[in-house]
Amino acid sequence: MNTLLNQPLCVVNAGLNSFADNLKTAGGDVVALSWQPPALGNIEAGLDLAQLLRHPLVEQANEVAFARYLSAQPALVDVMFAREAIAAMNERQLILHSGPPIAWPDMCGPVKGAIIGAVLFEGWATDHEAAGRLIESGKIDLEPCHHYHAVGPMAGIISPSMPLWVIENKTNGKRAFSNFNEGLGKVLRFGANSDDVLQRLHWMSEELAPAMKIAVKRLGELELKPLMAQALHMGDEVHNRNAAATGLLIKRLIPALLECNLPLAQLQRSVEFITGNDHFFLNLSMAACKAMMDTAADVPNSSMVTVMARNGVNFGIRLSGTGDRWYQAPANPVEGLFFPGYGVEDAAADLGDSAITETAGVGGFAMASSPAIVKFVGGTPADASNNSRKMQLITLGGNPAFTLPALNFAPTAAGIDARKVADRGILPIINTGIAHKQAGVGQIGAGITTAPMSCFVDALLALSQEIK
Amino acid sequence: MNTLLNQPLCVVNAGLNSFADNLKTAGGDVVALSWQPPALGNIEAGLDLAQLLRHPLVEQANEVAFARYLSAQPALVDVMFAREAIAAMNERQLILHSGPPIAWPDMCGPVKGAIIGAVLFEGWATDHEAAGRLIESGKIDLEPCHHYHAVGPMAGIISPSMPLWVIENKTNGKRAFSNFNEGLGKVLRFGANSDDVLQRLHWMSEELAPAMKIAVKRLGELELKPLMAQALHMGDEVHNRNAAATGLLIKRLIPALLECNLPLAQLQRSVEFITGNDHFFLNLSMAACKAMMDTAADVPNSSMVTVMARNGVNFGIRLSGTGDRWYQAPANPVEGLFFPGYGVEDAAADLGDSAITETAGVGGFAMASSPAIVKFVGGTPADASNNSRKMQLITLGGNPAFTLPALNFAPTAAGIDARKVADRGILPIINTGIAHKQAGVGQIGAGITTAPMSCFVDALLALSQEIK
Repeated sequence: MNTLLNQPLCVVNAGLNSFADNLKTAGGDVVALSWQPPALGNIEAGLDLAQLLRHPLVEQANEVAFARYLSAQPALVDVMFAREAIAAMNERQLILHSGPPIAWPDMCGPVKGAIIGAVLFEGWATDHEAAGRLIESGKIDLEPCHHYHAVGPMAGIISPSMPLWVIENKTNGKRAFSNFNEGLGKVLRFGANSDDVLQRLHWMSEELAPAMKIAVKRLGELELKPLMAQALHMGDEVHNRNAAATGLLIKRLIPALLECNLPLAQLQRSVEFITGNDHFFLNLSMAACKAMMDTAADVPNSSMVTVMARNGVNFGIRLSGTGDRWYQAPANPVEGLFFPGYGVEDAAADLGDSAITETAGVGGFAMASSPAIVKFVGGTPADASNNSRKMQLITLGGNPAFTLPALNFAPTAAGIDARKVADRGILPIINTGIAHKQAGVGQIGAGITTAPMSCFVDALLALSQEIK
Repeated sequence: MNTLLNQPLCVVNAGLNSFADNLKTAGGDVVALSWQPPALGNIEAGLDLAQLLRHPLVEQANEVAFARYLSAQPALVDVMFAREAIAAMNERQLILHSGPPIAWPDMCGPVKGAIIGAVLFEGWATDHEAAGRLIESGKIDLEPCHHYHAVGPMAGIISPSMPLWVIENKTNGKRAFSNFNEGLGKVLRFGANSDDVLQRLHWMSEELAPAMKIAVKRLGELELKPLMAQALHMGDEVHNRNAAATGLLIKRLIPALLECNLPLAQLQRSVEFITGNDHFFLNLSMAACKAMMDTAADVPNSSMVTVMARNGVNFGIRLSGTGDRWYQAPANPVEGLFFPGYGVEDAAADLGDSAITETAGVGGFAMASSPAIVKFVGGTPADASNNSRKMQLITLGGNPAFTLPALNFAPTAAGIDARKVADRGILPIINTGIAHKQAGVGQIGAGITTAPMSCFVDALLALSQEIK
């Protein structure tokens, strides 16, 4: 001790910077370590985390879950109406929404607006007030898409008469679903429910969906991972940017569509709609990711995250090892850029099932492949590459099916390990659009957000209970 | 002097490495500078170069030429048969080829094969032997595409009955042309001339071209720079890779095509052809680049390069300040990867007008935007970025219309200055396909090549004569 204090001090300071500052002022040589206690400093969680780190049962389970995720081969196989694909919709009046479960009174503006729109679209009420009363009466069930192997962007509304993309994982025959993308502007997923929005939904059900169904049947099936992999080499991260993937889809769909003897007017309107919407592929990307993550679900003891989703109030995650349980926390704010005339006070909380893309290793995790959108969210290409690298620290491995040219074709970081998130204090990065908090205004910006730490801490506490 | 030699030696060695090696062995501190005398050590050229560097007339002329290049707004405005677009084709039997002028006996295998194919396609002869005799008789004129504001990839053959893309520079109303892309495999541009190749050419003239013409007319006009700029953010460098650009073109063309009341079978075959060929946009990219470079041509005293083209034997360039004169040298070898079963001994010399893309600041100059193809030519994404940066040292400026995400959205280096090439010893980089030396075998690889230095030295000698 004497020796230590008699020689020049060289200090590594963990914790408050002010300690380091004092040492520096006194002439000491200090490195101020950026460190926070793991698991938010929660002692119980910290002990559980310590027990789970390198726990052989967890390690083994994660290997199984991650291998299942890697092996998934999602293919677009059909287009069906929600009532055909989801049996429960024939038994009761059911509307699905994005994110974890939430009761009607607690929902945010855009989701409420979109649900009212869906009630009107279904003809369950004839005006907004009647729709509101019907929902308040409790006669309509409101449940998460994720409870039915489905996903939807933003409000994520799926009602019985809406068409769904049907994605089948060819390795196990299981199916995942997503609704159709309506384009930008005034759309249901941002809470708009005016007549033109409902008319577009009717047209999509009555004309676009049958055309897509017949084209998909003509194609037989369309493997989606190779298409997503190509798009990652063409500037998409297949979450906030889907321009290339939509183009690749169009190249496959349109020739098939032309062979289906559809009336010319239907063909023209369908092609115009698809070619005019660079986000058309987003819902397919999400459903493909949902299929990959469902494959990894329900492996006992696994700490791999299989769902991340937002309902406009809370962020929720699910862990492979704890099945259907949700771990929720208020959504983190979005760091981003707002369209002219809007600011942070106008923004709804982070919203939508689209974080399933990050859960599957693309989206924000593959930001290095999409330098063109980092400008859109206020960053630089170097930020994008750094974000993709950082995600390697909280994931179980790389997905060789998805490679990033800017990182010398390194595989995307995939398979979020809740243990690593809590231990390293690094949060999963999510690319996201920003919705106006009032129903119907629509998108007002885009940016980057993170999953809240307490979801991961709660999940670990629960997993630890199961293993004890 | 005494002082110098009495202190420890620290040497910068320019020239032969062996001098540096000896000094190193003797314990000296040496930096071996990678240096070659400028202008290939040609004393006369070196003196001319010294005179031209920073010459106020040249500087001023280059400013004018470069500003004209930047201002060009090439738009796709029409599809015409070559005989309609190029008046000389009505006066005599004329076939155009790629690169600088070359006589029939001197031509390489693929170009000869393609010219025979064109003679048969035109019905000027009924079999290969008769076609050969007709060409040897001298009754058919063979001239460069560039002499008629046209460009063609590889053999670059344009005969009167072939359809051309018509590109108009909206800033001066002048037009540039390119033929249609036939896809990969056995195609005329690689020297194939069998019945199936000719049948495809007939179908393109009779069915595809009229469909494209009516669709282009329906679109009114299609600005090509914004489309190329988008493609540069989607992994294309719009020379060797045009997958994204073709997708963007398809999104515009097909909805227009559907509005034209074409017979369904024609529609189907046309759409299938376009969607099945990721290189479909290449010829439009080339014609757009030709339109940009033609705008910069014929500025007296300018040392800006306006054409780089290969005829399968020689590489030729043109300088803005010396108008229509060609400066030629044997083409440099291609560093690249060969398809299985082929090697360097099978390769034709570098071929085609497609180096007009590099002349306009894209292609190899924009390699940083296309990391996915550097693997195809045997490099890494870092090589790609370095190549794009290096081209900044031999160009007049950056083109803000074309930005490179991987270089933090820096503009592409554009406007090759022959003075800088000769002075700095850095050669323009060109992405290229490799053709088999025998007619009809087709593409056997791809890689990177450079323009030969002596073209630039000769061009400077000529420019210097004009200024003296």
